[in-house]
Amino acid sequence: MKNKLVYKYIGKVLIGFSILLFFPVLISLIYKENIMPFIIPMSISLILGLLLNLLKVKNKNLFAKDGFAIVAISWIIISIIGAIPFIIDCNLDFSSAFFEAVSGLTTTGATIFEDVEHLSKSVLFWRSFMHFIGGMGVLAFVMAIVPLSKNDKSMHVLKAEMPGPSVAKLVPSIKKTLFYLYFIYISLTTIEFILLMIGGLNTFDSLLIALGTAGTGGFSVLNTSLATYSTFNKWVVTIFMFLFGVNFNIYFLILMKDLKSALKSEELKAYILIFIVSFIFILINTYNMFANLSSAILETAFHISSIMTSTGYSIGDINFYPTSCRIVVLALMIISACAGSTCGGFKISRLIIILKTIKRDIQKTIHPNSIRTIMFEGKKVEEETIKSTQTFMFLYILLIILIMFIVSFDGIAFEQTINAVFTTFGNVGLCFDITSFANFSSLSKIVLSIGMLLGRLEIFPIIVLFSDIHK
Amino acid sequence: MKNKLVYKYIGKVLIGFSILLFFPVLISLIYKENIMPFIIPMSISLILGLLLNLLKVKNKNLFAKDGFAIVAISWIIISIIGAIPFIIDCNLDFSSAFFEAVSGLTTTGATIFEDVEHLSKSVLFWRSFMHFIGGMGVLAFVMAIVPLSKNDKSMHVLKAEMPGPSVAKLVPSIKKTLFYLYFIYISLTTIEFILLMIGGLNTFDSLLIALGTAGTGGFSVLNTSLATYSTFNKWVVTIFMFLFGVNFNIYFLILMKDLKSALKSEELKAYILIFIVSFIFILINTYNMFANLSSAILETAFHISSIMTSTGYSIGDINFYPTSCRIVVLALMIISACAGSTCGGFKISRLIIILKTIKRDIQKTIHPNSIRTIMFEGKKVEEETIKSTQTFMFLYILLIILIMFIVSFDGIAFEQTINAVFTTFGNVGLCFDITSFANFSSLSKIVLSIGMLLGRLEIFPIIVLFSDIHK
Repeated sequence: MKNKLVYKYIGKVLIGFSILLFFPVLISLIYKENIMPFIIPMSISLILGLLLNLLKVKNKNLFAKDGFAIVAISWIIISIIGAIPFIIDCNLDFSSAFFEAVSGLTTTGATIFEDVEHLSKSVLFWRSFMHFIGGMGVLAFVMAIVPLSKNDKSMHVLKAEMPGPSVAKLVPSIKKTLFYLYFIYISLTTIEFILLMIGGLNTFDSLLIALGTAGTGGFSVLNTSLATYSTFNKWVVTIFMFLFGVNFNIYFLILMKDLKSALKSEELKAYILIFIVSFIFILINTYNMFANLSSAILETAFHISSIMTSTGYSIGDINFYPTSCRIVVLALMIISACAGSTCGGFKISRLIIILKTIKRDIQKTIHPNSIRTIMFEGKKVEEETIKSTQTFMFLYILLIILIMFIVSFDGIAFEQTINAVFTTFGNVGLCFDITSFANFSSLSKIVLSIGMLLGRLEIFPIIVLFSDIHK
Repeated sequence: MKNKLVYKYIGKVLIGFSILLFFPVLISLIYKENIMPFIIPMSISLILGLLLNLLKVKNKNLFAKDGFAIVAISWIIISIIGAIPFIIDCNLDFSSAFFEAVSGLTTTGATIFEDVEHLSKSVLFWRSFMHFIGGMGVLAFVMAIVPLSKNDKSMHVLKAEMPGPSVAKLVPSIKKTLFYLYFIYISLTTIEFILLMIGGLNTFDSLLIALGTAGTGGFSVLNTSLATYSTFNKWVVTIFMFLFGVNFNIYFLILMKDLKSALKSEELKAYILIFIVSFIFILINTYNMFANLSSAILETAFHISSIMTSTGYSIGDINFYPTSCRIVVLALMIISACAGSTCGGFKISRLIIILKTIKRDIQKTIHPNSIRTIMFEGKKVEEETIKSTQTFMFLYILLIILIMFIVSFDGIAFEQTINAVFTTFGNVGLCFDITSFANFSSLSKIVLSIGMLLGRLEIFPIIVLFSDIHK
């Protein structure tokens, strides 16, 4: 990467990240825990950031590939720095700590720990806080707070980091857009936090669960995840997981009191439809396994919400699901929720574009001379968008197969291998038959971590980074 | 379907099929078995064919969709008629008989029978003969023997039936092309037949195994498939399975003494490379499970050849394969061998086009203004071909998931469900942990049969047929 501006930008991100690391320091001070696990990475991030920020840059232009490079390199460095607390405070080896940090930042929520109840408060906070900052994007946060050059080229960075086939600027200025996004994000989190406290949960746990829901992460504070929480709180989390799976543009439209446009969204309708259909299907196939219908309804709604939004909280066992329900769950893991939300996965909008393209191409086979355009959310979909969506899907499949192949050397059963790869690549975290990833080999932990990063950053930044190194 | 020519054409196909049914009648006469199981379907096929052929047709033009319709309807009717011997002679119910017939015609080789050694000679012959006629295409056979109109519009039919992204006309006339294809097909089969006899196998079994290899089918005459055959014969079948996985254009080039062009084929090189890499990989991971290295080499080569070419013969157990090898096997089932061969599956040429498209689109993401064309086999790949290849792949994945979902209701384990669907959709027949499909529900048998037809006819004809019915 020749463009020095890339490194300068990464420097800014690291300075921003060191500010975020102040929060767990605060928590360890409050709970009178060791602050060193967070002071060390905070210092490293700050010093490295300041050094990179000193770089003299003549060329002030950022191109698409620079945006990809900034995002990819930043996320990798931040994951490494974010792993340090786990190494110091929990005595994890590097691959395990890296896995845990990546799982946190990518909002996956798959954990190395077999027992989370013995972790220090500050480490528990750090895990959930990583979900929160990773959900909206570490760089988006930095862009919201650091001064930006006026030529607006940083859009490339936002494009590379934000999920979905295209980033809509809500308002003409990026800063204002980010302001609205963060306003929605923090407001929803705060409301959930308050509701959880009303539901009887203590302040610390309420905060962590709210942060984890917001980022659609899934790290919990108890070994049984949310199973022991009150029914009221289980419903609160069910609903908020679902809400964080909605495209934030919808909330922006609602804020602007344009409810009509908000409700017209094809993706939103599809999201609700997929949820309802999956809910009814799984309920019919499993309700007789529950003590009563109301707990069947709650658990099914909770787990579908958790899986579709790639959160990964759980309130009970899902290992008894029959094969047909397991296939539905795997499909939901891949499809995930709306673009422009904090969720991982392929995204419903992409699925819609792919399905419409298939329909058009079948029609073209029958009537070769017909010309048809694809419409989505009331706008014509450009051929470029279709192409990049298709390429994205191919890469998605290829990479999943590749990762599955490498992980398969661990010798665990075929179905578990598929589950582990799907749940990490889709940033879900919850899966059948696996509760902790501690028993995977170091190679698998690193490969699954790369998978989580590929999934969260939607492949291109990482691919571009590695194809660029070879030049 | 308004075009009466479609039905007239189907009539011709049925007349042709009734001629083919004369062969098992002959076999039952030779072995003094009941001829009724074959006389009845032969008469039905002939009478129905003659009736349809009486249709008065004014419009003599065949369009692309007509070609698809002819192929789809013909294959469905022929499968039903071809199932009649199993109903009469083996007392199978309709769904099982239909499954067996479709498995034969689509050259899958997945069987309903738990014990094939008690079947009559004529039924055994019919199973393998269906492989042979299905391999090259029932309609291709009919087009080779019935008089065609001179305007050459029947190319649409050939395109709809023959495997691969595009059908190359070897010579300007379709009839001549078909003549060459059948010449190559029958010559290779005959050579294998003779070699198997030299290897000590009796005439009847040699013929059936040769027919099954040619069509890349996989029905065998013993319950242990080919496990008890001589080492020489096992190698003969290994080599001939591999040879039938090669694009027949290559043999045509060799016949024309253009060895240079033949060896330049990218697809051929990729085919050989995939074979060698998979062979070495599986050998390294499994050789210590065999009595000695030579049997490890033979069994591994045999099974890779069998799976890659979608044949499905076996000479030993593969259920001990570790997860990593199972993933390789599943990948080979999907990728399969060359276009323009008798194999099922996605085809290597499509994979190459997809991979080259991904590479180009990644380059486009890095350098948005670059213009790159995709070259394959020395020619520029048209954007139309790329698009239809991509659509084919999406449909492939969607349909596999859909079928998997329906079959999952049978309640068998997740991995077996995947195996059953992959092996039928890819027209392979061999799979892990399943030897007979008798225990599947009637619904699954029908759905897996539709999957075999979709796989063999490469999806479009069946899709076009059903989307046409709704108009």
